[in-house]
Amino acid sequence: MIIVLRPKISKKDEALVLKEIRRLGYKPHIMRGVARTVIGAIGDERTHHTLETLTAFPQVESVMPVQKRFKLVSREAHPHNSTVKVQDQLIGGQKFQVMAGPCSVESEKQLLATAHAVAEAGATVLRGGAFKPRTSPYEFQGLGEKGLKLLAKARKETGLAVITELLSENHADMVAEYADILQIGARNAQNFQLLIAAAKTGKPVMLKRGLSMKVEEWLLAGEYVLANENPNLMFCERGIRTFETYTRNTLDLSTIPIIKKESHCPIVIDPSQGAGRADLVVAMCKGAVAMGADALLIEVHPNPAEALSDGAQQLTLEGFRKLMVELKPFIAAAGRE
Amino acid sequence: MIIVLRPKISKKDEALVLKEIRRLGYKPHIMRGVARTVIGAIGDERTHHTLETLTAFPQVESVMPVQKRFKLVSREAHPHNSTVKVQDQLIGGQKFQVMAGPCSVESEKQLLATAHAVAEAGATVLRGGAFKPRTSPYEFQGLGEKGLKLLAKARKETGLAVITELLSENHADMVAEYADILQIGARNAQNFQLLIAAAKTGKPVMLKRGLSMKVEEWLLAGEYVLANENPNLMFCERGIRTFETYTRNTLDLSTIPIIKKESHCPIVIDPSQGAGRADLVVAMCKGAVAMGADALLIEVHPNPAEALSDGAQQLTLEGFRKLMVELKPFIAAAGRE
Amino acid sequence: MIIVLRPKISKKDEALVLKEIRRLGYKPHIMRGVARTVIGAIGDERTHHTLETLTAFPQVESVMPVQKRFKLVSREAHPHNSTVKVQDQLIGGQKFQVMAGPCSVESEKQLLATAHAVAEAGATVLRGGAFKPRTSPYEFQGLGEKGLKLLAKARKETGLAVITELLSENHADMVAEYADILQIGARNAQNFQLLIAAAKTGKPVMLKRGLSMKVEEWLLAGEYVLANENPNLMFCERGIRTFETYTRNTLDLSTIPIIKKESHCPIVIDPSQGAGRADLVVAMCKGAVAMGADALLIEVHPNPAEALSDGAQQLTLEGFRKLMVELKPFIAAAGRE
Amino acid sequence: MIIVLRPKISKKDEALVLKEIRRLGYKPHIMRGVARTVIGAIGDERTHHTLETLTAFPQVESVMPVQKRFKLVSREAHPHNSTVKVQDQLIGGQKFQVMAGPCSVESEKQLLATAHAVAEAGATVLRGGAFKPRTSPYEFQGLGEKGLKLLAKARKETGLAVITELLSENHADMVAEYADILQIGARNAQNFQLLIAAAKTGKPVMLKRGLSMKVEEWLLAGEYVLANENPNLMFCERGIRTFETYTRNTLDLSTIPIIKKESHCPIVIDPSQGAGRADLVVAMCKGAVAMGADALLIEVHPNPAEALSDGAQQLTLEGFRKLMVELKPFIAAAGRE
Repeated sequence: MIIVLRPKISKKDEALVLKEIRRLGYKPHIMRGVARTVIGAIGDERTHHTLETLTAFPQVESVMPVQKRFKLVSREAHPHNSTVKVQDQLIGGQKFQVMAGPCSVESEKQLLATAHAVAEAGATVLRGGAFKPRTSPYEFQGLGEKGLKLLAKARKETGLAVITELLSENHADMVAEYADILQIGARNAQNFQLLIAAAKTGKPVMLKRGLSMKVEEWLLAGEYVLANENPNLMFCERGIRTFETYTRNTLDLSTIPIIKKESHCPIVIDPSQGAGRADLVVAMCKGAVAMGADALLIEVHPNPAEALSDGAQQLTLEGFRKLMVELKPFIAAAGRE
Repeated sequence: MIIVLRPKISKKDEALVLKEIRRLGYKPHIMRGVARTVIGAIGDERTHHTLETLTAFPQVESVMPVQKRFKLVSREAHPHNSTVKVQDQLIGGQKFQVMAGPCSVESEKQLLATAHAVAEAGATVLRGGAFKPRTSPYEFQGLGEKGLKLLAKARKETGLAVITELLSENHADMVAEYADILQIGARNAQNFQLLIAAAKTGKPVMLKRGLSMKVEEWLLAGEYVLANENPNLMFCERGIRTFETYTRNTLDLSTIPIIKKESHCPIVIDPSQGAGRADLVVAMCKGAVAMGADALLIEVHPNPAEALSDGAQQLTLEGFRKLMVELKPFIAAAGRE
Repeated sequence: MIIVLRPKISKKDEALVLKEIRRLGYKPHIMRGVARTVIGAIGDERTHHTLETLTAFPQVESVMPVQKRFKLVSREAHPHNSTVKVQDQLIGGQKFQVMAGPCSVESEKQLLATAHAVAEAGATVLRGGAFKPRTSPYEFQGLGEKGLKLLAKARKETGLAVITELLSENHADMVAEYADILQIGARNAQNFQLLIAAAKTGKPVMLKRGLSMKVEEWLLAGEYVLANENPNLMFCERGIRTFETYTRNTLDLSTIPIIKKESHCPIVIDPSQGAGRADLVVAMCKGAVAMGADALLIEVHPNPAEALSDGAQQLTLEGFRKLMVELKPFIAAAGRE
Repeated sequence: MIIVLRPKISKKDEALVLKEIRRLGYKPHIMRGVARTVIGAIGDERTHHTLETLTAFPQVESVMPVQKRFKLVSREAHPHNSTVKVQDQLIGGQKFQVMAGPCSVESEKQLLATAHAVAEAGATVLRGGAFKPRTSPYEFQGLGEKGLKLLAKARKETGLAVITELLSENHADMVAEYADILQIGARNAQNFQLLIAAAKTGKPVMLKRGLSMKVEEWLLAGEYVLANENPNLMFCERGIRTFETYTRNTLDLSTIPIIKKESHCPIVIDPSQGAGRADLVVAMCKGAVAMGADALLIEVHPNPAEALSDGAQQLTLEGFRKLMVELKPFIAAAGRE
């Protein structure tokens, strides 16, 4: 920790700060600069009481942490890329993976038609929401366990793995029974109790970035999964909230090189939520591939205009098939299969 | 719903859109403008399938909802201010209320010292976190049920009502047993399962605004409480996330007149979280009172520099006492007691 | 400057960083912590080459400035509040000031009616745009010099001082001839050439905060005025751009205590631009007064619905009169006249 | 325009709104819905008084524009891609273009070394700031005309075209004399006087997106150039300001498909400003190419750590050479040369 003192502090006031630093278990180290005195506090910031509370001292102008707060998710801790095994596929390995399917599971017919189409086009994981977090209590909330059963049926018929959202701690075991990957949605990205419950199922967890989550906070939320002894974590960028209203969210593709740099965990891009508009999804997928993403998560629906949720952002079956063809040269250019 | 068609659409393409509108249960009404054709879809947007999925049609440029999506929390539904009764106090009534206490319950000594001091200075509700949502898994997570017991003890000694955060669906009954008001924190503001669990306890609920929650989304999250048959809802503004880094968050005081205009529920302001710095809290409290807030939620700690969480933003006991004196003329100017 | 090295740097690599720090005129000071080595660079950051370029070294993890970059606008440089004299009024003194008038000067009739009404209600400065920055080239761009002449006429008739926006370096002398205060608008808040031109007229300058300007950047833009030998600077908060769309901008009232803390210059609040809605302006004015603002800038129009710009946010003459009455107890509570 | 009335408005109040709509030159068209009455106002929104001022009526809940406000920059107006000719190169055509060079022109040696290196690696345009907008008045402000002369010299030696920033209306002729493309920087993106001055030189204009500029505002700022009879406009995305602090700005790559959809003008991506960190630039360049950008603008410096501005984000000469090699397969995949 670096503690910057206000200008013109008396020796006595300075001593009080030094005393407190020592009391909290750090060793203070003073540097007298031209305009300010700065104190370096030597000690492990992750195991000691934080010194940020020192800003409560009138003598202190600011406190700046030096150490990164995340540990297990960091590349420092694990220099090689980690991979997540889902059925017989690796996410984060040499093969570029595509997860696709409807926003919500609506019916057997809708789900199976989509599952067969995306499998044929090259996807390896089927997405579909059975429990849906909806902004309004009056909107369609998902089919619940019935939806999970349909996903399991689609897996059996197509061989696709299944990813679906976990909304409630109380559903963790039930959802884990049917799904191959548990998705933690953006609204619950800092619902730590849910993260712990998901981690404890032992299933792979895909953690979406919250709408206004800083990279460090996202990594720390992921730390909750690894710290609960589940190493199978993926991060998923799905757009952040900004002032721009043309798109539903602003897909922050720079998180691809950032997550690769800071963490060893795979990074997945969800361009459907990011754009909120199917007509922008294709370009965003190409960008994600080129920038080094490990996988895509794409919303596909047999008839988007009749979708019970988020119709505007879902690709048609034919649109998805064409996308997969168009992505090929970019996957090759990125050195992936 | 208003559906704007793209320019130069053929009659046949237009007819397809009209057919879909009818199929979804609305009556279309065409207006031919100078540059665009616009269709008004007559029907209740809250009971029918949303037409926003129409943007999946290539013929459609945009879809604009006309109706407000929230119902029970709206002032339209309940033109008079509603009040929430907590022990013998009304929140949202003529009396201006102050809730104060430490960020976290840390020890009996810390809590009781704070409780007596804030009660003496005029607060009527004691705040204190027993379950703490922390960005990092390595930070202090709260005393749990032991903290709840200390809050109950402080209530008994001081007569203050108790507000504390509910973090997990599984704790709803336990927390409701000890607390007079359940707080839903910013990170869980769209954790709808938690909102439902809180509502079902029957206890008053204070819903903090999420870090990047639009006013409409906040009102709709509140709608989850009222729709689950709990009328005792308060909104609490605690700052939103913006580009500014001088303060921890940007306290959006304009929500006071906005919530008063759109909703009948009381509005509480939390300047401690909003500022993240004790030295700005006093001015923000004055602003909140002047703008018509119903209550304040203020962090107070006997020794902020030693606090186990958020020390930088907590007032000292003496600081709080002085604040209460300084607020008096503004409370009078606002026509409150 | 504090330079944080990456973990596990060799002595040789460390030496290269130290050498560069010395070459740039600073004295390095090493602190070896538990997880990182940190270098304090002793020297005046305002007169030396910035060390932020050191992040270009692969050995360096981050560089953190210690000193504040603004000087002349800082309270450190000038501990007492400074005041700006406009005609016989002081802005920033004991008397609370109100600036009011139409968004745009549209006609003699409109301007004079407004000027007389606001003067009678207690305003001391007349606002009105003669040159208007408009998002679209097809919108009303203001009356230009004709508008300035009308403002001068209104001043003569009412005794009000005049504030109006300066849009172009080439107009600086012309606008200064007619106006008592030059306003730099939000879109030009970092148009440094314009700031310099305004400063050089010698007239008082009111600098609006840019839509996404951090406090530090705003203070530094003000520094351009003082560094060009014009001490008569006021800051004006008018709302920042955030994700919220209910209001046009998010009025950041926390800037009142922040500017008071960091700077000696007066702070003015513009609730009309901040809210974009007249029905919220009244509450925002009360908040601004209570929080310690030195003045308000309020848009008033005889018939807002016919205004050539920003009709939605302008108060009627009667609305303004009532506002001034309602503000009185808050001005008294704030200890102002 | 669509005007939504508040619920339960009397016929008389409704008539007042209809009268005002007619008075402002529109033909009103009433639709009575389930919860609200909606009025469509038929007329050209670009040539008539805006109806947004109607929100000043207490009867009106909201006003929603239907038409797009930009005209000349829109793809509707010009369905084919437009290209900008610079020396013998086309920007926006089949060939992918790269503009590269130092943030600031610092010396003849620095500039010529960079120019030769980037030309050899395949760039066709040389960037370099002679007039620099700096957040602080105490930072290096550029070499001014001397810098322009060095750029001209570099052009002569290398055959590269030259792009440089225009900061002041008063410099428009001078800068146009030396440069092939005038750059309008982010801070001046809504400095309309500067845009008009740039347009009038007749030289191609590259308009950077302002830090908090919505897509529509950006297009409208571009409209100022075309409306002043200069058809040679390029847009340049360089990152927007968001809550994220890991990167200096958030590069919004979704603007590539958006600008392509809404406008016929070329789109250039500046990943250096967007990231503020050289180590992220390479991935961002790949993403921009894949998503369909027409050109890149990249900061390159012989010795970034000694740069007088923005050292942290500049590539080395060798870094740039490697980048150009790595981009090749992506340029091919995107079907460009």
